[in-house]
Amino acid sequence: MQTREFFVSAPGKVILHGEHSVVHGQVALAVSLNLRTFLRLQSTSSGEVHINLPNIDTFLSWEITALQPLLAGCKEQGGLKDLDADLLKRLREFTRISEDSTDTRSMAVLAFLYMYLSVFAESLASITVSVWSELPTGAGLGSSAAYNVCLSAALLSARGNISNPLTPQQESARWSKEEMELINRWAFMGEKIIHGNPSGVDNAVGTWGGFLRYHAGNITPLSWVPVLRILLTNTKVPRSTKVLVSGVKDKINKFPSVMKPVLESVSAVSCVCEQTLIEMAERGPSAEHYNILEELIDINQHHLNVMGVGHSSLDTLCRVTLARGLHSKLTGAGGGGCGITLLRPGEKTPPVSCLTSLSVGRQSRRGAG
Amino acid sequence: MQTREFFVSAPGKVILHGEHSVVHGQVALAVSLNLRTFLRLQSTSSGEVHINLPNIDTFLSWEITALQPLLAGCKEQGGLKDLDADLLKRLREFTRISEDSTDTRSMAVLAFLYMYLSVFAESLASITVSVWSELPTGAGLGSSAAYNVCLSAALLSARGNISNPLTPQQESARWSKEEMELINRWAFMGEKIIHGNPSGVDNAVGTWGGFLRYHAGNITPLSWVPVLRILLTNTKVPRSTKVLVSGVKDKINKFPSVMKPVLESVSAVSCVCEQTLIEMAERGPSAEHYNILEELIDINQHHLNVMGVGHSSLDTLCRVTLARGLHSKLTGAGGGGCGITLLRPGEKTPPVSCLTSLSVGRQSRRGAG
Repeated sequence: MQTREFFVSAPGKVILHGEHSVVHGQVALAVSLNLRTFLRLQSTSSGEVHINLPNIDTFLSWEITALQPLLAGCKEQGGLKDLDADLLKRLREFTRISEDSTDTRSMAVLAFLYMYLSVFAESLASITVSVWSELPTGAGLGSSAAYNVCLSAALLSARGNISNPLTPQQESARWSKEEMELINRWAFMGEKIIHGNPSGVDNAVGTWGGFLRYHAGNITPLSWVPVLRILLTNTKVPRSTKVLVSGVKDKINKFPSVMKPVLESVSAVSCVCEQTLIEMAERGPSAEHYNILEELIDINQHHLNVMGVGHSSLDTLCRVTLARGLHSKLTGAGGGGCGITLLRPGEKTPPVSCLTSLSVGRQSRRGAG
Repeated sequence: MQTREFFVSAPGKVILHGEHSVVHGQVALAVSLNLRTFLRLQSTSSGEVHINLPNIDTFLSWEITALQPLLAGCKEQGGLKDLDADLLKRLREFTRISEDSTDTRSMAVLAFLYMYLSVFAESLASITVSVWSELPTGAGLGSSAAYNVCLSAALLSARGNISNPLTPQQESARWSKEEMELINRWAFMGEKIIHGNPSGVDNAVGTWGGFLRYHAGNITPLSWVPVLRILLTNTKVPRSTKVLVSGVKDKINKFPSVMKPVLESVSAVSCVCEQTLIEMAERGPSAEHYNILEELIDINQHHLNVMGVGHSSLDTLCRVTLARGLHSKLTGAGGGGCGITLLRPGEKTPPVSCLTSLSVGRQSRRGAG
């Protein structure tokens, strides 16, 4: 242990285009939010591990001596390997979380214990980890990724696998590019535990922040994009990303000739959107640019309905905003969750209840520190 | 002139899948309806040509001597050539129908005069043509194609370009395959005058009847398909097929990388539907077959919305029927017009107003005679 106590925080995200199809190798565009998740890690001498998750009313602790036997049979965790299915199975038995449990608390606990045991495999340390967030869970805003990025950064740092970049003079600091990549890879492991087959785009935005293009595992930050005002609507309809992702996969397997072109089209939507954003930044935004962005939003929303991840609450959002000349789509996994509505410059926020206005755009690249 | 008076009739159609994308070389599935258009042709000695279209309140006549000069400069019309743009232009001037007129009456008159003058170019005959129909116009049910097929068959027959297959002993008769192909090609010319860039599928169904697969100009009748019950809803929202077809073309030109995969996906929907229908006929229909047909209807309706040919009235149809567990899509050009809703066997017609129940399925191949 290198420090007695420190904080990390990571931002949430919205996906502009490419949710779901990104899982199948297509292009996605995502942007970080000014809503963040915060983590405090304290090293203790209690002989126990504590996890406090006030947002989801979860406060648990284990004796290190009870956790130690779970590591029996584990291969060395010096580097970062594929997900250890045996360890995960033992953890599920230990915590009595069944194979088909996908609820937020169970998943958060599994991801924490898995990462803790893997990172500290050589010598389990007494720590207390507390995580709280401005992000709603299960709303497609990357709350699990922000959680996993915070966990990954804090545990790796506490274990000494990465540096503690904070000097006594600083209020906050960032890690090096290489360390950030390691944090991102561990966070992706946590995402796999929670979501099954995630794209990796959420943890990338949580780690790197800003505006990202994601394609087949490659992350490209967009360095120069216009400021876009986006209205965020939380339908508050709960759903499971894992179940939705798996439903899309089933549909692709059922109708490959029908569904594969749809994925291609979504990818093209992301690319045309990226080009349009670049052009808006270079030449200044015009009404025609906004027409294109709105058309792309409508097209993608229809495609997401084809994938079967729509919901009547999202249809209502689209209908209500369209009646005011605004264009909306779901963001994230769909099936409820959040929708985004593009606002034109100078446009007043329309009088729709339960809306939080966000400013999304060219931001300083904010990392996990 | 070979006969003094005779009747022809041709059926309307619904497109199950492939409207719009068929214009761009993709597969479509269409089926004839038990709603028909009827034509009576009388040869007279009045020195005039009369056209009576009671459904659209149009009763016009011209002296042959006034029409004759329009043929000056026409190349010989012995065979069937491309649309003669010069003749069409002269006809527009003569009838004072402007270039941008697309209303039903104007288009019906132009198609009639063009076909009459082209077929009878060598010697204009005195005739009276009356056409009436069970089909609403502008509703995507192929009323213009049924009109053009009737016109084509009647004029070619009266001119002696095709035989009169009716013997005194018969109530009705059909032409030979070669004659039917000629009728279909002339009807397609009429469709071009009315719609600009039609696919040819409507006139093919009007001519050949039954269940047809249409791909890149090739028509394949499906000989063995199950009986499907389809609910037909006329939104009564008027629209222009020409404008809608052109809008889709513009969208493809604006976003080729986005739109071309959508057309491919629609084509795949048609092919999977065809395979499913064949399987249903061979093995007997199952609940899973109906699940597939319903999923395909939903997917295609979303794709048609991507093409920009949806309408709020069609959204309402989809929502209202879905609330009763039924799946709907637009049929034909969209932008209003008609929608189709698949009914499962034994299902009662739901209490939705303005619905006409149709039985669509394996029918005897009904031609234009």
